[in-house]
Amino acid sequence: MTMPTHPLETLDTPAAIIDVARMQANIARMQQRMDTLGVALRPHVKTSKCTPVAQAQLAAGARGVTVSTLKEAEQFFEAGIGDILYAVGMAEHRLPAALALRRRGCDLKIVTDNSAAARAIAAFGREHGERLEVWIEIDTDGHRSGIKPDEAALLDVGAALHAGGMQLGGVMTHAGSSYDLDTPEALAAMAEQERAGCVRAAERLRAAGLPCPVVSVGSTPTALSAAQLPGVTEVRAGVYVFFDLVMHNIGVCRTDELALSVLTTVIGHQAEKGWVIVDAGWMAMSRDQGTRKQKRDFGYGQACTLDGALLPGYTLIGANQEHGILAAAAPAGEDVVARFPIGTRLRILPNHACATGAQFPQYHALAPDGGLRAWDRAHGW
Amino acid sequence: MTMPTHPLETLDTPAAIIDVARMQANIARMQQRMDTLGVALRPHVKTSKCTPVAQAQLAAGARGVTVSTLKEAEQFFEAGIGDILYAVGMAEHRLPAALALRRRGCDLKIVTDNSAAARAIAAFGREHGERLEVWIEIDTDGHRSGIKPDEAALLDVGAALHAGGMQLGGVMTHAGSSYDLDTPEALAAMAEQERAGCVRAAERLRAAGLPCPVVSVGSTPTALSAAQLPGVTEVRAGVYVFFDLVMHNIGVCRTDELALSVLTTVIGHQAEKGWVIVDAGWMAMSRDQGTRKQKRDFGYGQACTLDGALLPGYTLIGANQEHGILAAAAPAGEDVVARFPIGTRLRILPNHACATGAQFPQYHALAPDGGLRAWDRAHGW
Repeated sequence: MTMPTHPLETLDTPAAIIDVARMQANIARMQQRMDTLGVALRPHVKTSKCTPVAQAQLAAGARGVTVSTLKEAEQFFEAGIGDILYAVGMAEHRLPAALALRRRGCDLKIVTDNSAAARAIAAFGREHGERLEVWIEIDTDGHRSGIKPDEAALLDVGAALHAGGMQLGGVMTHAGSSYDLDTPEALAAMAEQERAGCVRAAERLRAAGLPCPVVSVGSTPTALSAAQLPGVTEVRAGVYVFFDLVMHNIGVCRTDELALSVLTTVIGHQAEKGWVIVDAGWMAMSRDQGTRKQKRDFGYGQACTLDGALLPGYTLIGANQEHGILAAAAPAGEDVVARFPIGTRLRILPNHACATGAQFPQYHALAPDGGLRAWDRAHGW
Repeated sequence: MTMPTHPLETLDTPAAIIDVARMQANIARMQQRMDTLGVALRPHVKTSKCTPVAQAQLAAGARGVTVSTLKEAEQFFEAGIGDILYAVGMAEHRLPAALALRRRGCDLKIVTDNSAAARAIAAFGREHGERLEVWIEIDTDGHRSGIKPDEAALLDVGAALHAGGMQLGGVMTHAGSSYDLDTPEALAAMAEQERAGCVRAAERLRAAGLPCPVVSVGSTPTALSAAQLPGVTEVRAGVYVFFDLVMHNIGVCRTDELALSVLTTVIGHQAEKGWVIVDAGWMAMSRDQGTRKQKRDFGYGQACTLDGALLPGYTLIGANQEHGILAAAAPAGEDVVARFPIGTRLRILPNHACATGAQFPQYHALAPDGGLRAWDRAHGW
């Protein structure tokens, strides 16, 4: 074998590569935008589940993190991050684990959107002598969870928590339907809808004599599209740290801002079909085909050279567990065997960075000077 | 909280549950079929990546295993399984790892489908004084990798290996296009196409004076549909060990044979939409929506009660990372809050067992007597 000439030739494949310069640019871009809008940034670390990434976000000015599981909360608390919002509706059976974290000194906030859970949380808190901090989840776009800003239930839940002896910390919302949009006007309108709904909920609670200091909104698309955020105290966003092809189709990033790619090796061809077989299948990319219903379908991902330059038209048109099928969108009779010989290394940009990252126990962080460091990430619950 | 009454109430959620009785029945069914057809069974352990599962398959009569990565090969060799076929076209940079396994006593077989790789394998083997065992991958259905049975290249590859001093161990094929079929007649025809093509390739090699002792075919659908397998020495199949909704739609299993499910908890509702929010999102189910293009679309999975009884019509119609949206196919105004109160535990049958299993660091194996054991599985490369 020839001597490696590129740091990425030293790795086995498939491998998850973070372009650290691009990641830092993404971190700076979002932080500066939030600073300009006058709100705190609480990044969602479910995208990376990686301590060095979160530390870079905090070093740039982020205040606290958002997590999607208590396992992430434990990971980041152990890394020294104490201000943590667990942003999935609290299940009663997880209360002991949440209490344990708080008793170890973690400033853990939990969320709820219904009276049954709110009462269970308050009862548990009283039983254990713990004034749990709870935020109410607000539904501002019909996408998923939450109480609508004008629902009567909002005040019931607020009262159940506050009168129940818990610390009603604020309201939070996530306009996940922003992922279905792709024009600046629609995104700006959704960002305003998200803001206005969450602020409305806060105002109703306060008018009823209930505390509501925090107003937390966010998704990457709305965070990058909001014109102004009066009444909002913090924004949450996750995937911006790496971006991905779904975000590119939505229109909030260029392809040269995508910081996560999958390194892969060519292992075969079906020349008459213009197919290049690579060792990045769906186990590496994930099964996420989020661009399929967007303006441009990138299959299982967009191919680039080892140096990260786009190979226009070449996407993974199919994937099995450990095989990816790379082909040109409009095969023009190119000799793929000559262009991509056996052993060629390529990089594949993912549809969805949160999904692709989850397939790997670690990232390989590639610094501008060519240095490579292995950064572990968490798996499971 | 009430005392748990069901073993599955002791686990955090989401959790990957193996119904051991169903798994054993699936193992026995496939083994008996292969015994009847007079061929060996070499299960593909990429589905479970779980040592107790593979040990159950071997205990039932399987001979050797198939793996999709060298990490699996190392896992199973360390568990005492020596007869291993690494069934993904061999990449040159992985040859040192393959050699290391063989030198530790692993009877590792590798595959190739092109002359460039065959020559590299032979050169490496000679350089290291190792007569590597290599099988040639045959393309019998245009699905993915392999040399077609009548291609001239077949004899070139065979000669490169044999004359190059390597052990040409046989031919292997995988009719992955069987996943697109759903009638017994079409499946039986594909099984015969798979068999005939692979046997044809073997016969051509032998006629050219090249050794070809093994003829290895398989996919779960063709393994369960082949009427007879003259000329075949072994069959490989993976997903049968758990089955899944894709296999159900293909027609090779009943829903009560599905041995893998995801345990989940109800954490919220959107009552006016008939939505039940559960904590099994795509991170738990995977993003595989393999049933979407089949006769029956199960969304992200079919819901069952805690005891595993189907909830007809209720599927996960949507999923975000840690939230699943359960709803009835034809919402009939059911009061989902009353039927599935906060805290209700359900089980979700997956589209694709290989993809869903990969999302978990471990399974929880549920025995008929209610006993639960944690079985670790491997993640990554």
